[in-house]
Amino acid sequence: MATRKEVAELAGVSEATVSRVLNGVGPIKESTRARVREAAEKLGYQLNAVAASFARGKSGNIGVVLPHVPKVHLFSTFYFSEILSGIGEAVRESGQGLLLLYRDPGEAYDYASLFATQRVDACLVLGASYQPREMESIVRMAELGLPFCVVDQRYDDPRIPSVCADHVTGSYLATKHLLDAGRRRIGFLNGSARYSNSADRAQGYRKAMEEAGAPADPDLIYEGNYSRTSGFEAASAVRRDLERLDALVCANDRMAIGLIQGLREQGCRMPEALPVVGYDDSDAASLFDPPLTTVEVPFYEMGKLAAERLLEGRKSEEGLRPFRETLSTRLIVRKSSLI
Amino acid sequence: MATRKEVAELAGVSEATVSRVLNGVGPIKESTRARVREAAEKLGYQLNAVAASFARGKSGNIGVVLPHVPKVHLFSTFYFSEILSGIGEAVRESGQGLLLLYRDPGEAYDYASLFATQRVDACLVLGASYQPREMESIVRMAELGLPFCVVDQRYDDPRIPSVCADHVTGSYLATKHLLDAGRRRIGFLNGSARYSNSADRAQGYRKAMEEAGAPADPDLIYEGNYSRTSGFEAASAVRRDLERLDALVCANDRMAIGLIQGLREQGCRMPEALPVVGYDDSDAASLFDPPLTTVEVPFYEMGKLAAERLLEGRKSEEGLRPFRETLSTRLIVRKSSLI
Repeated sequence: MATRKEVAELAGVSEATVSRVLNGVGPIKESTRARVREAAEKLGYQLNAVAASFARGKSGNIGVVLPHVPKVHLFSTFYFSEILSGIGEAVRESGQGLLLLYRDPGEAYDYASLFATQRVDACLVLGASYQPREMESIVRMAELGLPFCVVDQRYDDPRIPSVCADHVTGSYLATKHLLDAGRRRIGFLNGSARYSNSADRAQGYRKAMEEAGAPADPDLIYEGNYSRTSGFEAASAVRRDLERLDALVCANDRMAIGLIQGLREQGCRMPEALPVVGYDDSDAASLFDPPLTTVEVPFYEMGKLAAERLLEGRKSEEGLRPFRETLSTRLIVRKSSLI
Repeated sequence: MATRKEVAELAGVSEATVSRVLNGVGPIKESTRARVREAAEKLGYQLNAVAASFARGKSGNIGVVLPHVPKVHLFSTFYFSEILSGIGEAVRESGQGLLLLYRDPGEAYDYASLFATQRVDACLVLGASYQPREMESIVRMAELGLPFCVVDQRYDDPRIPSVCADHVTGSYLATKHLLDAGRRRIGFLNGSARYSNSADRAQGYRKAMEEAGAPADPDLIYEGNYSRTSGFEAASAVRRDLERLDALVCANDRMAIGLIQGLREQGCRMPEALPVVGYDDSDAASLFDPPLTTVEVPFYEMGKLAAERLLEGRKSEEGLRPFRETLSTRLIVRKSSLI
């Protein structure tokens, strides 16, 4: 993106004059003003100046844009509640407010307007995906140089700041734990591939299977949507494949719990009929019977870190530079995988 | 509080003139202006006019003020997450934003400034208590005629709008369920009495015990703070009293779960050693082993209703009138109370 210096050179004026024109400060000759505006427009600098004025921070609010999913009590899901708790802690410490806004998943969202109307000084995006309109909206924020961060979703575009968790390793460890216990034919119940965190889990699973010389069988890969109900529904397919399965890795605890409940309804003794590993280390993982072997993900820390980086960016002269953080995950062994 | 009509009568002018003076609209004789202002000041009407201007709604945000409790992941507690999900749904439908702000429990909070600086158009207070400074801050909002609502906390002051649940009946039903099963010496593990919802639970428990001719024994009433840890810690005292106890009612599921875990650590077989009833019907209640008999509370609906009432008030001419809603609770029987 263009700098103020480049605009000044193109217009043949000083950098200070560029600032005065773009901020509307002080007396300026009309011809000079026109030259600067023309140069800024050519170089796409105007938007940067607008972004800089946003960065001064007038609303006192950090925005969090969440997907609206009908009938889902979003705050009651471990995933969102922990990320939000972390964000809330960082924002509270800074004395800012936390403005929650909803978007429709898969649709475009006008982030720029949030800044333009000074409702927020910076913005966190939760539950984002690879769906084209969502991506375009997020890329647009990056193009405008607005201060934002995506949580637990990774894009190839290096201008898009994100805080993620190492789901490749998490899923690898979950699968390897079962392989080490002598299981070979291990299935995988994943969430939708529209999320990088699902794709990463699939990658870790495949990696562990290949390393063990027992490549993943595509027939034993199931898809849910991270809800307990989708795990419950997957139980029918898993039940049919039971003869071919030694164990199952699930992409979150809710699906693992739904799956176990579904298999029990179909007459299976659990965990004896099929060792299962969950993912997330939610409260439910330790309360459930059997307690779930699972992968701990630092969701709270991810939310806190993402918010802190935005808040730091607001204070610094240069504003926010793109960053990508990936926090560690770790395996927690409980009874659901041991038989 | 004074009405526009009373100001008009005292000043000897029409109501329209009062509006014009207070809103600074149209030409008015200086002597008329002075009379109206004097009358408004005498009657305390000025504040109402300020409140009315807030009510026009400029921020586009509904505020939610939450207690900040160190180390507690607030959004991950069933109680707050469900109330917030309900508020979020209503606010989303209205196209408004949801601004979350934290206060220190027990301390004064300057709600009026949130309105004066136009950060919020209306305000919901969660986790409020009877502590004097908290109450004073809330009463002050009522005095200023600001649009707000307290959720799950009741005050005697009729000017304070609230949406609550019928915890007297909830606790009564939980206790009666145990009495009907032949239990007589029933203990009660409550949360802090600084909340009306704790006081109400205690009242329902005592009522059921008295009706059964088995008045509550003060020695068998324990206090926690609604956390699982406080339930776990209460297990020591309950363990000592075990010979004198036939059953125990807990004021929420988290304390019930902590208590059961604590008693198990001390070598008790649960639920055989002591039938326990929880409260809230959280997700954990049905996942826990044994599944908890509990009281369902419509937290989501409470949050949604409180937000809807505020949003309606913003649209109406007269602004928000004080209201008090109390939603029903109901008993859900599972295995923790049956032996």
